[in-house]
Amino acid sequence: MKKALLYTLSIYFISATVSLAQEILVNSDRLHQHLMHLSNYGKNDAQGSDRVAFSTHDMAAREYVQGLMREAGLEVKVDFAGNIIGKRTGRNPDLKPIAFGSHIDEVPNGGHYDGPVGSLSAIEVIQTLQEQNIETQHPLEVIIFANEEGGVIGSRAMVGQLNEEALKVVSNAGVSQAEGISQLGGNPDKIPEMARKQGDLAAFLELHIEQGANLYNEEIDIGVVEGIVAIEWWEFTFKGKANHAGTTPMNLRKDPMLPAAKFILEVNETIRAEEGRQVGTVGKIEASPGAGNVIPGEVKLSLEIRDLSSEKIWSLYESLESQAEEFAEEFGVEVSVKHIEVASKPAIANESIRQIIKESAEELGLTTMSLPSGAGHDAQEMARIAPMGMIFIPSKDGISHAPDEYSSKEEIANGANVLLKTILTLDKKLN
Amino acid sequence: MKKALLYTLSIYFISATVSLAQEILVNSDRLHQHLMHLSNYGKNDAQGSDRVAFSTHDMAAREYVQGLMREAGLEVKVDFAGNIIGKRTGRNPDLKPIAFGSHIDEVPNGGHYDGPVGSLSAIEVIQTLQEQNIETQHPLEVIIFANEEGGVIGSRAMVGQLNEEALKVVSNAGVSQAEGISQLGGNPDKIPEMARKQGDLAAFLELHIEQGANLYNEEIDIGVVEGIVAIEWWEFTFKGKANHAGTTPMNLRKDPMLPAAKFILEVNETIRAEEGRQVGTVGKIEASPGAGNVIPGEVKLSLEIRDLSSEKIWSLYESLESQAEEFAEEFGVEVSVKHIEVASKPAIANESIRQIIKESAEELGLTTMSLPSGAGHDAQEMARIAPMGMIFIPSKDGISHAPDEYSSKEEIANGANVLLKTILTLDKKLN
Repeated sequence: MKKALLYTLSIYFISATVSLAQEILVNSDRLHQHLMHLSNYGKNDAQGSDRVAFSTHDMAAREYVQGLMREAGLEVKVDFAGNIIGKRTGRNPDLKPIAFGSHIDEVPNGGHYDGPVGSLSAIEVIQTLQEQNIETQHPLEVIIFANEEGGVIGSRAMVGQLNEEALKVVSNAGVSQAEGISQLGGNPDKIPEMARKQGDLAAFLELHIEQGANLYNEEIDIGVVEGIVAIEWWEFTFKGKANHAGTTPMNLRKDPMLPAAKFILEVNETIRAEEGRQVGTVGKIEASPGAGNVIPGEVKLSLEIRDLSSEKIWSLYESLESQAEEFAEEFGVEVSVKHIEVASKPAIANESIRQIIKESAEELGLTTMSLPSGAGHDAQEMARIAPMGMIFIPSKDGISHAPDEYSSKEEIANGANVLLKTILTLDKKLN
Repeated sequence: MKKALLYTLSIYFISATVSLAQEILVNSDRLHQHLMHLSNYGKNDAQGSDRVAFSTHDMAAREYVQGLMREAGLEVKVDFAGNIIGKRTGRNPDLKPIAFGSHIDEVPNGGHYDGPVGSLSAIEVIQTLQEQNIETQHPLEVIIFANEEGGVIGSRAMVGQLNEEALKVVSNAGVSQAEGISQLGGNPDKIPEMARKQGDLAAFLELHIEQGANLYNEEIDIGVVEGIVAIEWWEFTFKGKANHAGTTPMNLRKDPMLPAAKFILEVNETIRAEEGRQVGTVGKIEASPGAGNVIPGEVKLSLEIRDLSSEKIWSLYESLESQAEEFAEEFGVEVSVKHIEVASKPAIANESIRQIIKESAEELGLTTMSLPSGAGHDAQEMARIAPMGMIFIPSKDGISHAPDEYSSKEEIANGANVLLKTILTLDKKLN
């Protein structure tokens, strides 16, 4: 007990001394200017971004970003999956690199902050170290992942989770993932060779906008991400009997719309009944044949549940599944469920890194909040092979993936400074 | 009281005498043979009928039917709307014609009994009269209506209810109503000139399969139609806020799926809570953007209510509309309603004709049931200008508009005989 206290105090003392003595900060003007310049690649009439992965806008933006990386002194190459990797050597060649980055591709008609904030901040961190003549113990790596919005394609490839089937899927740019990766200078055939393994990196960090309104509503500067939630998808099919809506009396119907409706309400109730941050959504519903004058024969709907705990997700699902069967029986119809493979397991952020992020922010005078990431990120894949940490900054009104996505210049600089400080602390603490 | 009883008894005596003396019956073998022959026009691999209006199958079948009409001694012409009209003179040239018929077009992949039963029975009635050398007082008219399945197009034209907008609508055959009507030998430009008026016909009768299971389930031979229900359609739009399904906490959602689900259940409850044969259906639902990982911004659904009373329909609607507003408020979303013009008013069958149909059936030793028609028919339009009566025969399992639609040879002959007997009685009773 006494020892622990002493340790805590000494850590506090050292860090306080360091921060008073020589606080290193990024150049927020330069960072913001780079972000504004990047937003021109694919800006559409709605002021949104059409920079989908593999598009000509994406290709041009990647050229711009590689230029910035080289200016910052990084040795840049494109890996087999089209990820851009910029390397900076460290003092100790035996140490594994500390990696950090994000992505610059966008959803169709997306915003300008989503992945770019973390990508350009990562480069800004290197530029700052360069200017300050700071050499780290660990080698550093900036990674700009390929096609994050198309299903974290680049990061999945990097950790050996991208199979041949996934490479055939057509991307938003209209080409297959394999074709798109080739366009970026990758080599889809060699993706199996590139997989990194547990221990290949000392740590992975990602800075990102929150894509939710927790920080914005509470006016908190920095989100310390607890982890990236697991996502599970199911398709429920309620099967009754299609029939003439005029000639089939109410008591002779087998209308699948009724148990489907009851199920939708039950999802909301079951998910909210338990404490925690789990979310459950029915976003899609289709009645067949889908005419106003025909009792539907079939109603299909989607169920998505997200939580940091896979166990909790499946326990909620099981309760809902048995409710669905009860409702189907009540209305004389059948129900079946298909589990959709979305390959999204929970990714828990490393406890020590979370602590360092929190302390780094506080030492910079910033307020923090711990929260899960409800959205998917490249960091969730990187967590498979390295201790992972994520830093969130506020996003106005919680808006994301839309043209009016916005974080202020100051909020972005806060994130970049926490990223920089976290990297320097990790560099000292990790072996 | 005594007089009424005497009258009833004398009617009974006369009709009993007549039926014993000279019951005139159709040739059920010939009728069934014609029906089987007609089914070959457009029969598809699923043994269903692809004889949609204006298709080559429809055109060929119309030629076949016109041949049958001429063989039966009818003077055949095609009116401006493409309806086939076959005339037979009566003894009294001052009397208005008694008209009867149905249609021979089908829904895509429909059955072989729907309209053909009433169409070919009408021709068989004439053939039988011809063979028996029976001349009626009234002129008789067999009408085979054009494009019934496309929205009772031919009968609407005949009663002056088909406007220019409706003529532009593309039919199931891929051509506009106007083009299709021209193909049939009609003249869409002259449709306004053809409208018949109240008093132009002494009566209109239609024989049809029930398209429901009331007769089949109760093993009743003949349905005496009380009237054709009114149909009203509305589109409800619940408008919330589309948002990320992963990053939007349950308590910050404005999810329109929830009030929509509650509304669907309420429709079922409200419609069933009141006595009567009214039906209410939500057959169509759409969530936008409609992705499993997005909270919908909008849910649109259809509401259809049918009943013989328009007043009842609107009173049910008003109750549902106010429920919808309550549900929307409960979940913090907006709701709006659009009334869709389907131009389907209730058509009440003539009381005396219903009585004659019932008695005709009973005198033929057949059982009867009074019931509304939940489906639309050409008779509903003809009711605008003439006393109308409809005769239903059982349809196996209540199936219609599908390849396995079926009525037996005997059931069909029963219907044709009731039609024949009703026409002969009307001929005597009407002036």
